[in-house]
Amino acid sequence: MIRITTKPLLLASLVVALGAACSANGDQSSSAMLGFSPSAATKQQSLEKTFDAQLQASNLRDWLKNMASEPNQVGSPHDKANAEFVLAKFKEFGWDAHIETFSVLYPTPKKVQVQLVAPTQYDAVLNEGPLPGDPSTDITKDVLPPYNVYGGDGDVTGELVYANYGLPDDYAELARRGIDVKGKIVITRYGGGWRGLKPELAQEHGAIGCLIYSDPHEDGYFQGDVYPKGGWRPDQAVQRGSVAKMQVYPGDPLTPNVGSTADAKRLDIKDAETILKIPVLPISYGDATPLLKALGGPVAPASWRGSLPMPYHMGGGPAKVHMVVESDWGQKTIYDVIAKIEGSTAPDQWIVRGNHRDGWVFGAADPLSSTVVMLEEAKALGVLYKQGWRPQRTIVYASWDGEEPGLLGSTEWVETHAEELAKKAVLYINTDGTSRGFLHAGGSHSLQHLVNQVAVDVQDPETNVSVQQRLRARLMVAGYEGGSAEAKATAKVAAEGGDLPIGALGSGSDFTPFLQHLGIAALNVGFGGEGEGGVYHSKYDTFDHYARFGDPKFEYGVALGKVVGRLVMRMADANVLPMRFSDFSAKLDEYMGELHKLADSTRSATEAQHKLLDSKAFELAADPTEKIAPPARLSDMSAIDLKPLDEAVQKLAQSMQAYDAAYKKAQDNGYDIPKAQEQELNELIGNMEKSLTSEAGLPGRTWFKHMIYAPGMLTGYGVKTVPGVREALEARRWDEANQYAGVTAKVIDGYRAQIEKATALLTKS
Amino acid sequence: MIRITTKPLLLASLVVALGAACSANGDQSSSAMLGFSPSAATKQQSLEKTFDAQLQASNLRDWLKNMASEPNQVGSPHDKANAEFVLAKFKEFGWDAHIETFSVLYPTPKKVQVQLVAPTQYDAVLNEGPLPGDPSTDITKDVLPPYNVYGGDGDVTGELVYANYGLPDDYAELARRGIDVKGKIVITRYGGGWRGLKPELAQEHGAIGCLIYSDPHEDGYFQGDVYPKGGWRPDQAVQRGSVAKMQVYPGDPLTPNVGSTADAKRLDIKDAETILKIPVLPISYGDATPLLKALGGPVAPASWRGSLPMPYHMGGGPAKVHMVVESDWGQKTIYDVIAKIEGSTAPDQWIVRGNHRDGWVFGAADPLSSTVVMLEEAKALGVLYKQGWRPQRTIVYASWDGEEPGLLGSTEWVETHAEELAKKAVLYINTDGTSRGFLHAGGSHSLQHLVNQVAVDVQDPETNVSVQQRLRARLMVAGYEGGSAEAKATAKVAAEGGDLPIGALGSGSDFTPFLQHLGIAALNVGFGGEGEGGVYHSKYDTFDHYARFGDPKFEYGVALGKVVGRLVMRMADANVLPMRFSDFSAKLDEYMGELHKLADSTRSATEAQHKLLDSKAFELAADPTEKIAPPARLSDMSAIDLKPLDEAVQKLAQSMQAYDAAYKKAQDNGYDIPKAQEQELNELIGNMEKSLTSEAGLPGRTWFKHMIYAPGMLTGYGVKTVPGVREALEARRWDEANQYAGVTAKVIDGYRAQIEKATALLTKS
Repeated sequence: MIRITTKPLLLASLVVALGAACSANGDQSSSAMLGFSPSAATKQQSLEKTFDAQLQASNLRDWLKNMASEPNQVGSPHDKANAEFVLAKFKEFGWDAHIETFSVLYPTPKKVQVQLVAPTQYDAVLNEGPLPGDPSTDITKDVLPPYNVYGGDGDVTGELVYANYGLPDDYAELARRGIDVKGKIVITRYGGGWRGLKPELAQEHGAIGCLIYSDPHEDGYFQGDVYPKGGWRPDQAVQRGSVAKMQVYPGDPLTPNVGSTADAKRLDIKDAETILKIPVLPISYGDATPLLKALGGPVAPASWRGSLPMPYHMGGGPAKVHMVVESDWGQKTIYDVIAKIEGSTAPDQWIVRGNHRDGWVFGAADPLSSTVVMLEEAKALGVLYKQGWRPQRTIVYASWDGEEPGLLGSTEWVETHAEELAKKAVLYINTDGTSRGFLHAGGSHSLQHLVNQVAVDVQDPETNVSVQQRLRARLMVAGYEGGSAEAKATAKVAAEGGDLPIGALGSGSDFTPFLQHLGIAALNVGFGGEGEGGVYHSKYDTFDHYARFGDPKFEYGVALGKVVGRLVMRMADANVLPMRFSDFSAKLDEYMGELHKLADSTRSATEAQHKLLDSKAFELAADPTEKIAPPARLSDMSAIDLKPLDEAVQKLAQSMQAYDAAYKKAQDNGYDIPKAQEQELNELIGNMEKSLTSEAGLPGRTWFKHMIYAPGMLTGYGVKTVPGVREALEARRWDEANQYAGVTAKVIDGYRAQIEKATALLTKS
Repeated sequence: MIRITTKPLLLASLVVALGAACSANGDQSSSAMLGFSPSAATKQQSLEKTFDAQLQASNLRDWLKNMASEPNQVGSPHDKANAEFVLAKFKEFGWDAHIETFSVLYPTPKKVQVQLVAPTQYDAVLNEGPLPGDPSTDITKDVLPPYNVYGGDGDVTGELVYANYGLPDDYAELARRGIDVKGKIVITRYGGGWRGLKPELAQEHGAIGCLIYSDPHEDGYFQGDVYPKGGWRPDQAVQRGSVAKMQVYPGDPLTPNVGSTADAKRLDIKDAETILKIPVLPISYGDATPLLKALGGPVAPASWRGSLPMPYHMGGGPAKVHMVVESDWGQKTIYDVIAKIEGSTAPDQWIVRGNHRDGWVFGAADPLSSTVVMLEEAKALGVLYKQGWRPQRTIVYASWDGEEPGLLGSTEWVETHAEELAKKAVLYINTDGTSRGFLHAGGSHSLQHLVNQVAVDVQDPETNVSVQQRLRARLMVAGYEGGSAEAKATAKVAAEGGDLPIGALGSGSDFTPFLQHLGIAALNVGFGGEGEGGVYHSKYDTFDHYARFGDPKFEYGVALGKVVGRLVMRMADANVLPMRFSDFSAKLDEYMGELHKLADSTRSATEAQHKLLDSKAFELAADPTEKIAPPARLSDMSAIDLKPLDEAVQKLAQSMQAYDAAYKKAQDNGYDIPKAQEQELNELIGNMEKSLTSEAGLPGRTWFKHMIYAPGMLTGYGVKTVPGVREALEARRWDEANQYAGVTAKVIDGYRAQIEKATALLTKS
């Protein structure tokens, strides 16, 4: 579901919230396999070599062709057939596998309609027609019309208003021009923030309906040749997608916090906080053009304009639109396939690895391109198992259903098995589509060094250097060629030669319930940056498209299998779980710097705005013929006290030094630790991330319990780190910022207490 | 000719090379009229009030309608008629006026043709048709087809290559993709740099022809509604313009350095360095679309893409174009109208004020919108004269012909009268079109305080605060809303409440021969930023367009008259010429900071690139399917020695302190200086700017003699300050940079010697 394959987005996902990437303890040259004694490391390397030898690109191709041959959305016959196919494969590979089902609310469209009714007439096509050369596009059986799941039903007619990306700043711009969306239909373009926020904010502002279109600037001919000539979005292609308020809680809207088993207690639909009330529809730029062309009102600000060949106006009117959404609000069954290899010495420490299986239509790139990689990993692990290998820890593979509508399969499974998982799971590794190019990895920063060690050991198929070296080159070149301060900072880090930074995780894929609900360390990985991602969530995300523009040789699929296989096996086999907490501590320090900067810049921006308002500078600077009012006055800023948090982070850094020293000794001794102590140590390490949660959760969304990583309330998929404090500052809730500085400090103190225990354990040995 | 009326460009022209704008001597609160004793200031204020009362918007409207009623290009009947009209007006207003003619080479198109001949056929329209509601657009008599004057003749056919803006970096991108323009036709878009550079660089790279089109992104529907609905460029509108190599020398290509009088010695056309050899034509985006659509080859980099509804490809081929330019290479007569009011006490100190009169077609906004302001000023000055006012210094008003093809009228006049002007002229004030909005001023920084004092005294028509206060508000708001570091720095300066910075002058209008050839202090002023400038150099620059989208009430025309009238009268009447050299000295200090930064960043970028090349990072970061080679290796950097220049600037700043102190004393004494001494002082002050010239001129262009301000060799109109050093650094000619650091230091030492003389004179009194 998350979108990581297009070029402009990749780099951002690589460098989110990065900074000092070299190891916090200065141990840059350490090439010893983290967590393994020298002899264990040698054995592991040989195991990995055998693993690699099993991976076949031809399997990826054949399975993808098969799995993407019919529509795969929740409730479709082929979705179930694929579950059975995956189950059969797991069994064939020697895994202990089963299907676990849930019953979820999943509305499907019975009628959708969009018409321009004034000043001219236009009936939107709302259909993705066949394209020459791609037989999948001829298929109509089981293809649903484009829709945004979990919007409301409705039959509404109203003036149209263009609201750019439909985010808070955009409504501020409309307000300055006296444009109110109340009782009107809002049209926004995709981009700038998560799709679900667009109708949510439209609804909050009183709109009666919301259209979301793909502008060719972000997603169409501006990017390159459109499908089928090139890979980019053609004029009738539509981006489907969920608009549930997943940043409050993901999963079945009717069963927050509990698994949607047959007998679960369910909310009434009308009481489900994550379902919108107004109708929402996604449309193509082909359908959006006549609507936008018919708009009057002021010319939109420059940053609102896309690549359609016309001036962009804001409305409202004279364009008037009639839209209809009528859905079947029935329950559907979803099918999670769960497969296991039991651990030999620590069966109660689980390494979970998942990928969803449902798509919006054929779902070749998203998600099946990496579903087939997961299957190929499972095959290779099965071969190792047959050859006698037994992982120390338990490995769980999961093929999730219902990710697209709102992480249904993973969330319901996690909620159902919460108690067991909280005890046992030490890592969740996610993939969600992959293509050609560069490794991207996000996750818990204690895993940053492990990811880098793996990235050194896997070769890039196109250049025959390590995937780390290739990514390093890209980051360095981007900093040299690009202008942004962030790109330059990353390039500097990359040039220093140490570990490359991994990004923090927001949401948009199945890692969320693990990481942010239960506090299980998580990773999300994939390759991308060279594929052409122009068919995201459309009917044109087909096997043929992927085979031409995704990963034609399926060699990056194989590389991804090598990366994930190593992550899984090293976590499963290590003497001591291969996590390095000083990387997390260093990252926290960086976040504190950002928070102080945010507080300072908020204060100075507030003062600057007040000064400009008081001196009437906005009125004087405005063109009087344009009638743009000054911006609304920012609230006064109270005192912000981040000191408790600063102190907690500093103390953690100090404790970390002692831990690092003790760990280094253990490492130098080849992890020669008495078994009982080693087990105790691994339990401590495996539970570190959980100590970053707070049972009360984040303000207004108790489901989200991780105090360091969360999807933003106003960014959707995009991460907010130290969210209790950061989002309060951004939303100008000063008391809440101070309160959560305290809450977060306490959580970090708890984390430190665990580290100190681990240090004591290591010192004892 | 210079383009200052569109919104995005205005701000840049305001803030070019600005910095510490408050007075260098800290004298921010000084509201005393610079150069005037208290009693003289009182008299002057009353004079200015009388002057203001004469200015009538209705005259501006009536004269504009008349003067823009027929095409006005060089050689057209109406251009001559307008000269006679202006002459008659000057005489009617009581001025001593005459017409001075020159005979210049001015090619006009006999045949122009652009055809796409493969892979499909398209005949370019090359014609700006009539538009409803604007009767001027029905006129065809004397309208020439769109052309770029001083391109070559030719009938060529070749593959088409898209080269973005056609600037050096663009050719580097083509080269990295293995695309050579040799023997091909280059199509570039307008923008990014001066138009003349595009065909010049195309020719240098071996192209056989060059097309320049207006992309709707910079100049069309992306900006807003197109004419006649709105003011922006419609799909068949063409930007004409000169492509002479004016950065080498402006004026008649056949008579560099001397006036093109009837008997002047002329070069052969083939020997004229400023005329291109290859054919060049400007085309509309309507005509460009089918050509660009037919291009194959790689998709162009993101920064190359405009707002046409298609992917931008680079070519070359399969698009093949046939283009023809056939011109009449005859001599034409140009008509400068020169009018004078003799000075009473210092007739040999001249204040020259000019505006050109020729347009590309009707030329309503450019240049006639401010030609009529100049006429109205002349009327008002005539009234004052009739009432008995006699300026102390001589006032010369000039209506230039032939500015558009290459500053012909001003340059030939200046070259003809160089000796007298070098002795007598103390200031040249230029306008070149005006519209609604904000004051913009560029020029010699010794005039910055005068401009600010005038800007405080003239009221903005829309807001009723001073034009300085309105501009200050705009700069502050732009810094608050805008992201650029430059905008923020300017906002900070503006918020401090002192003088607002004026920009440095490059070229593109008639100030160039005065400032940069003779070293006469110069100013260029106008209003803009709210008009819609989408008809620049097209047939649609009509009276109706200007009356709807330029300055509908002609109130900014009146405001401009008040600004220029004050500048002229204060310079003509002051006891001591109102210049403040410490502002220039402070600006020099700022330029030195920029040059050091440039040297440092050039060095670090060179090292960074070499490191990336040596580590093969470009190869590793590239998508192998795109076949983009690493960039060409930057030359090694030698030692750069700016010390002589640093010292000269520091010494000047020291001498300036003594001058300021002495000046302040004189000012506090009401400029009570013995007459002979005052005259000597004024002669010194009036000659200060000339000491900034070096007879040998700039490298490769001896016509340009000013060592501080010049149009860039690679920016055309855009200024390069301290050009001998800056351009050498940019072009990686290290020895030349060091050499010109010395040359410029010497010039600044000469300037300092003059200042020290002035200090001595002031101290004596």
